[in-house]
Amino acid sequence: MSEKHILFVLKEEEPWKLSPEALKLNPAGELPIFVFDGNVISGNNGICEFLEEVHPDEPLINGDARHRAEVRRLTEWFDNKFYREVYRNIVIEKVFRRFVSGAAPDSKILKVGFNNLNFHMEYLDWLCETRKFLSGDEYSLADISAAAQLSIIDYLGDVPWEGYKNAKIWYSKIKSRPSFKEILKDGIKGILPSKHYSNLDF
Amino acid sequence: MSEKHILFVLKEEEPWKLSPEALKLNPAGELPIFVFDGNVISGNNGICEFLEEVHPDEPLINGDARHRAEVRRLTEWFDNKFYREVYRNIVIEKVFRRFVSGAAPDSKILKVGFNNLNFHMEYLDWLCETRKFLSGDEYSLADISAAAQLSIIDYLGDVPWEGYKNAKIWYSKIKSRPSFKEILKDGIKGILPSKHYSNLDF
Repeated sequence: MSEKHILFVLKEEEPWKLSPEALKLNPAGELPIFVFDGNVISGNNGICEFLEEVHPDEPLINGDARHRAEVRRLTEWFDNKFYREVYRNIVIEKVFRRFVSGAAPDSKILKVGFNNLNFHMEYLDWLCETRKFLSGDEYSLADISAAAQLSIIDYLGDVPWEGYKNAKIWYSKIKSRPSFKEILKDGIKGILPSKHYSNLDF
Repeated sequence: MSEKHILFVLKEEEPWKLSPEALKLNPAGELPIFVFDGNVISGNNGICEFLEEVHPDEPLINGDARHRAEVRRLTEWFDNKFYREVYRNIVIEKVFRRFVSGAAPDSKILKVGFNNLNFHMEYLDWLCETRKFLSGDEYSLADISAAAQLSIIDYLGDVPWEGYKNAKIWYSKIKSRPSFKEILKDGIKGILPSKHYSNLDF
């Protein structure tokens, strides 16, 4: 929304225990929930495609139909495959479990997450070798989807940037965008960010 | 594609062991893969949005921006949430495991899948109580996404239709569509369909 210069107000929710107001807006009990002119829209993909339709200026699903398919393929890759194979195993274990049950992370699950992360970093690095941004020459929804998840893992200090030079250059471009700089100021209660987290020259 | 009257040729792949040709088309090793005028598109959402853009007649993501958001929300619901909570626990256990390792399904995982299925059937039934199709008055991508997964579970005889009258009426409408009738002729090697599977009046 910042990329599209849309003004908005964020309301924090705990994903594992939604407030009664949030449950009223989305009885399915899933985040994110987006309220716009009295409309309630939920579902990550639905919200992004909706914003693209009502704010077509400064497109984030950009280019011709073929290129938009590439943007959507990569967005889906990170929203689903990366989420399932990496994010769930690392972030849910290290952060969510702590808040829900106070339990320590399961080292076996973490290990699976770290192994998968290396596989995905290789793919990211390969994409960034020939492309300025993930889907091509322009910044797109694919970059947002990838950076949103990577930044939390980077907050925890778990992204092996050193082995992936092209991916690192790409991520420094993302970090320097005004829309992203604001996000880097956020914190997770009780967990300090890695030293380089909000450093643009990491 | 049948709904949009697009001619196509299907090539069967085993998801757990892609052919060299398929891996060449999508090095990520994920299905579905769609080849169109020399373009290769992969990713479920990317393919569907692409088809919608190049074949806007007979739209499946239909209505105004608000309604299209509802279509996408429900499509995402079934493609991700239902897939994760129900499909994986039932279909991967009962069908995929059999082909990959020959192992019997894990009864604990199956039980989780059946419990979740009841929860999702309630939601489906609730939607169908006030709507002709899942997203509203018109047939849409949401119906296709839901029916695609339910039909395999129904093939296995595991959908508790009796408790969900409205969902059952909806599914009989889906089954009678020409595009769907063809699909009901397909079979899974070595597993017989439930008695009522391709029966329009079940």
